[in-house]
Amino acid sequence: MANKVQVLYDFTAEVGNNELTVKEGETLTITNQSIGGGWIEAQNSRGEVGLVPEDYIEFGKAAPSFQAAGHPAPTPNVGVVNQDLSIFDSYAPAAAPAHNQASNGNDPWSVFNADPSGGSNNNWAANPEGTQTGKSPADPWGSISQGHPQAYQGPGAEFDEWDDEWDDKSTTGYAESESGDGAAMQRGGAHASSMKISLNKFPGFSKNGPELYLLCKQLAKSKERLPIYVGEVGPVWSYPETQFDCVVADPKKGSKLYGLKSYIEYQITPNTTNRPVNHRYKHFDWLYERLLDKFGSAIPIPSLPDKQVTGRFEEEFIKMRMERLQGWMTRMCRHPVVSCSDVFQIFLTYKDEKDWKMGKRKAEKDETVGVMIFSTIEPEAADLDPSEVEQKCEQFSRFTKAMDDGVKEILTVGNEHWKRCTGPLPKEYQRIGKAFQNLSSVFTSSGYQGESTLTDAMTAAGKTYEEIAQMVAEQPKKDLHFVMETNNEYKGLLGCFPDTIGVHKAAIEKVKEADKLVATSKITPQDKVTMAKRVSTMSYALQAEMNHFHSNRIYDYNRVMQLYLEEQVKFYETIAAKLRQAHGQFTTM
Amino acid sequence: MANKVQVLYDFTAEVGNNELTVKEGETLTITNQSIGGGWIEAQNSRGEVGLVPEDYIEFGKAAPSFQAAGHPAPTPNVGVVNQDLSIFDSYAPAAAPAHNQASNGNDPWSVFNADPSGGSNNNWAANPEGTQTGKSPADPWGSISQGHPQAYQGPGAEFDEWDDEWDDKSTTGYAESESGDGAAMQRGGAHASSMKISLNKFPGFSKNGPELYLLCKQLAKSKERLPIYVGEVGPVWSYPETQFDCVVADPKKGSKLYGLKSYIEYQITPNTTNRPVNHRYKHFDWLYERLLDKFGSAIPIPSLPDKQVTGRFEEEFIKMRMERLQGWMTRMCRHPVVSCSDVFQIFLTYKDEKDWKMGKRKAEKDETVGVMIFSTIEPEAADLDPSEVEQKCEQFSRFTKAMDDGVKEILTVGNEHWKRCTGPLPKEYQRIGKAFQNLSSVFTSSGYQGESTLTDAMTAAGKTYEEIAQMVAEQPKKDLHFVMETNNEYKGLLGCFPDTIGVHKAAIEKVKEADKLVATSKITPQDKVTMAKRVSTMSYALQAEMNHFHSNRIYDYNRVMQLYLEEQVKFYETIAAKLRQAHGQFTTM
Repeated sequence: MANKVQVLYDFTAEVGNNELTVKEGETLTITNQSIGGGWIEAQNSRGEVGLVPEDYIEFGKAAPSFQAAGHPAPTPNVGVVNQDLSIFDSYAPAAAPAHNQASNGNDPWSVFNADPSGGSNNNWAANPEGTQTGKSPADPWGSISQGHPQAYQGPGAEFDEWDDEWDDKSTTGYAESESGDGAAMQRGGAHASSMKISLNKFPGFSKNGPELYLLCKQLAKSKERLPIYVGEVGPVWSYPETQFDCVVADPKKGSKLYGLKSYIEYQITPNTTNRPVNHRYKHFDWLYERLLDKFGSAIPIPSLPDKQVTGRFEEEFIKMRMERLQGWMTRMCRHPVVSCSDVFQIFLTYKDEKDWKMGKRKAEKDETVGVMIFSTIEPEAADLDPSEVEQKCEQFSRFTKAMDDGVKEILTVGNEHWKRCTGPLPKEYQRIGKAFQNLSSVFTSSGYQGESTLTDAMTAAGKTYEEIAQMVAEQPKKDLHFVMETNNEYKGLLGCFPDTIGVHKAAIEKVKEADKLVATSKITPQDKVTMAKRVSTMSYALQAEMNHFHSNRIYDYNRVMQLYLEEQVKFYETIAAKLRQAHGQFTTM
Repeated sequence: MANKVQVLYDFTAEVGNNELTVKEGETLTITNQSIGGGWIEAQNSRGEVGLVPEDYIEFGKAAPSFQAAGHPAPTPNVGVVNQDLSIFDSYAPAAAPAHNQASNGNDPWSVFNADPSGGSNNNWAANPEGTQTGKSPADPWGSISQGHPQAYQGPGAEFDEWDDEWDDKSTTGYAESESGDGAAMQRGGAHASSMKISLNKFPGFSKNGPELYLLCKQLAKSKERLPIYVGEVGPVWSYPETQFDCVVADPKKGSKLYGLKSYIEYQITPNTTNRPVNHRYKHFDWLYERLLDKFGSAIPIPSLPDKQVTGRFEEEFIKMRMERLQGWMTRMCRHPVVSCSDVFQIFLTYKDEKDWKMGKRKAEKDETVGVMIFSTIEPEAADLDPSEVEQKCEQFSRFTKAMDDGVKEILTVGNEHWKRCTGPLPKEYQRIGKAFQNLSSVFTSSGYQGESTLTDAMTAAGKTYEEIAQMVAEQPKKDLHFVMETNNEYKGLLGCFPDTIGVHKAAIEKVKEADKLVATSKITPQDKVTMAKRVSTMSYALQAEMNHFHSNRIYDYNRVMQLYLEEQVKFYETIAAKLRQAHGQFTTM
C-alpha cells in the first residue's frame, strides 16, 4: 500500500478525540497504519496529524466494492451531526413508513449497507483490512437510511466497539448468534420478501418455524419453567415477589488504545444487590441480542436506543442515551420472565470479570431459544380450542395495530408541537416583548414629564413576554419530552408485536393444516393432538404477555399524562403569575 | 342607448338588497334605467332581474375611458368580500409602505381611480349618466389599491351616499371643500410629487401656505379665540371644565329609493345634552372634512375608519365600524379645541333638520380654515426665539417618526400573532386533543378490564385541549384586538403629523428667509418682526398639541396595556384551571 492515500468520504473529527477532519478527494499521508480498531493515523496537506477511519480511505479496490453492488453512492456523515445537536430541539417526524423505527433497521438494504467495506456483519473477513477487530468506525448510511435518532441501527452499525479484551470469545459468540441480527432486520415485517438471506435464521419465519416446537419430540431439555396462572384479568405470568429495578447512572468516559480512543461506561445498580456493575453500550447490545434470541417469539423485546457515532461524547447525547437505557432496563426489569432469566441476572449482578465471561459464554450456548421458549411454558389452565386461540390472536393483532396508529399520531402531533414551541412561537413572544420595550423607549424620549410609570411598566411587560418566550421554548423538555419518550418506547414495543403475533399465526396455520398432514401421513394423529395442545400453550403465553403489556400500558400512560398535565398546569400558572405582576405595574391615570 | 348592454366587470350582489350578480362579458337587458343613484335595473339571460351599478355596464364610450388613461385593467370586487369576512380573523400586515394606511388614500392614483366613470370626485358632471346624484355605486379599485380594511378610502369611494334629501346644498359644499380631499391624499407625503393637482388646494403645501398667516395684515376676523396657557408640562390648550364624551350606538338599517337601497344610521348621544342625534357614515365624513379644513394645520385630525361597499350590512362589519366611529368620536370629544368648535357641536347637538342644515351651511362657509386657524390662537406666554421654535419642531418630528415606527412594529408583530392564534396554533391544540382522545378510544377497545379510569381521564384531557384550542382562537378578539385598535388609531394619528409639522417647518423656513425678503424689499422690517411673532404663536400651538397628544397617549397606552394583560392573565389562568381539572382525573395505580 502506498504511503499516500485518497479520502473516499467526508469525515468530521470528534473534538478532543485525536481525530482528523477530512474531505472526500483529499490526499493523506499515512503516518501509522498499526493503530488498530479500524483507525489509521494520517497527515493532511497542512501537516495536521490525526486518526481517520480506515474505511474512509481508498485502500486498493475494497472501498468501491459496494458501488458494484448497485447501491447509490454514499454520502457519509450527512445528518448525523444535526441529529446530535438537535437531540433536544425536535423529534423527527413519526410519519415515516410503518414500523420504520420500531426496531433494528427494517430498511431491507441495511444489512448490505451497514458496513461500507462491502462485507456483511457476520462475515468480518470480508473487511478488506481483515483484522479481527476491524469493525468499521463509522456508518456512512446509518444516519441517512434511518433518519431518526432513536432508530436502532443493528449491531453492524456500532463502531466504537473495536476493543476485544472484554469480548474474549464473544466474536465467535456473536457469529453464532447472527440469527438475532436477521431477526432484528425482520422485525418490522414490511420488507420480509427482501430479507430472505436472513429469514432462515429466525425460527418464526423459516421452515424451522413454529413446527420446530409444535412437533418436537422432546420438550424442556432445560430446567427452566415458565408457569402461567389465571388471574383476575386472565392468564398471567408468574411475577416475582419483589419487582426488580435498577438505576442506570454515572456515565464515565474510559479510554482505549493508550488513550487514543474513548468510550462511555455506565454504572448499573440493581435494587436486589445494590452493588453497581459497569457496562458499555455494546454490552447492553449483547444483552438485547440474547433476550431477542431467547424470548423474541413469545415476548416483544424492544430495541435499544439508537447508536450514534459522531458527537457520542456530547453531554446532551450521553444524558439522552442514559435516560433511554434506563427506560429500556426498567422495562426489562418489570418483565417477570425477562428479569428472572439467567442472562439478565448475570448482566446485572456479575461479581467479577471471570463471572461475567462465564455468564456470557453460558448465555451464548443457551439452546432454549426461538420458538423453543414455548417448551418451558406451563399454563395451569385447561387447553384452549384452536378457534379460541385464533380469535385471541386476531384481537391482539387488531389492538396492537390500532395502538400503533394512535401512538404514531401522538408522535406526529407532538413533534409538530415541539417544533412550534421551540421555533416560531418563542420567537413571536420575543418580538412582542421587544415591540413593547421599543415603544417604551420611544416614549421615554418624549421629553414629556411624568411618564416613567408607564414606560417602566411597558418595559417590564416587554421583558415578561421575553421571559415567556424562553419558558415556551424550554417547556417541551419538561413535559412533552416525556410524552414523546413514552410513546417512542411504545412505538418500539408495538413494532415488535407483528413478529411475535406472526409466530402465533404461523402456528395456528400449521394446526389448521394438521388434518391434511395426518391424511398424507406426514404426521401422526397423536402429533395433531400435541400440536393443538402446544398452540394452546402458545396462546396462554401470548395472553399472559398481552395482560402484562396492558397493565404496564395503563401504568405508563397514567404516569406520563399526569406528569405532562402537572407540568402544563405549572407552566400556565407561572405565565399567569408573571403577567399579573406585569399588569400590577400599570396605573390608571 | 340599446336595450342590450354588456357587463364590464364582475359584480357580486349584496344579499337582500335587490342586486343582481353579473359576470364580465355577460349581456343584460335594461329593464329600468331611471332608478338613479348610479344604479340600473337589468335582466340577465336566465330571466333574473335586479340592480346593477351602471358603471359596471358598457354605456357608449364612457366606461373604457379610464383604460385610455393608462391604468391597468380593473379587476373589481376582488378582495372586498375577503376583507369583509376576515374582519375579525386577521389584521392586514402593517409592513406596507410608510403611512400607507395612516390616512385618506395615499395611493397617488386613487384620485383617478376612485370613480370608474373616469371623472374626478369633484366633477360629478363627468359621470356619463350625468345625474346630480350619480355617484358611482362601487369602487372596483378601492379594495385592491388599498388592501387594508382600515384604510380610509376618501370621500370618492363612499358609494352608498346617493341620496340628497339630507344633503340639500351640500353638494355645492362638498365641491367647495375639495381641498380637504387633496389634503387627505397628501397626508402620507410619500408620493407628493404625483399629487400636484391637489396640492395647491391645501394651504400647508401651496404657494398660499404659511405665508398667508405669517404675513396677513388683519388677523382674527372671526370672534374665535383659542388661548394657550403654560401649565406644568408647558404650553397647553384651554380645557373645558367638563370633558365632552358621546356614545355611538344602535346602528339601524334605513332604506332609500322606495326600499330598493339601504343604509346604516348610528345614534350618537353626547354627555352634555344626553339627547341622541342620528348620523349616517357620510355625515361623519362631512364632519371629518370640516375639521380637517379648519384645524388640520395645527391639530392632527385622524381619518375616519374605512368605508366598505360589499358586505357593509354584515353584522360583524357594522359592529366594527361602530366601534371605530366611537373611537374616533371619543378622540375628537377629548380634544379641547375640536370638541368646543361650532361644527363639532352642531354635529352632536342639532335640534332638528333645519338646525342641522343651517349649521352645515355655516360650517361650510367658515373662512377661518387652513393656516388661518393660527390667527385665533393667543398664547399667554412670551414670544419664542425662532431657533427655539425650530428645535421644538425637530424634536416633535423625531418623536412622532420614532413612535410611528414603534407603533408599526407592534402592528406587524400583533398581526402575525393574531394569525398564529387564529390559525395554526388552535389547529395544533385540536390535533393534540384528538390524538389523546383517539388513543383513549383505542385503549377502550383493549378488552382489558379496569382501565376506564384511564380512558375517561385521557378523553377528558383530550377534550380539554380541544377547549384550549377554541380559547386560543377566540382570545385575540378579547385582548389583542384592543392593542391593535389603539395602535391603529395612533398609526392614523401619527400619519397626520408630517403634514402638521410640515406647515410649521415651512413657516420656519419663511422666517429664515425674512432677512433676504427685507433686503429685496419684498417685506418690510416690521413684517419680519410680525413673522417671528407669528411663528412663535404657531410653535405654542404645536407644543400645546404635542402635550395634548402625550397626555392622551399615556392614558391610552396605560389603559390598553392594562386591559391586554388583564385578559392575558385570565386566559392563562383559565387554561391552567382546565388542565388542573383534567389532571385530577388521573390516578396513580
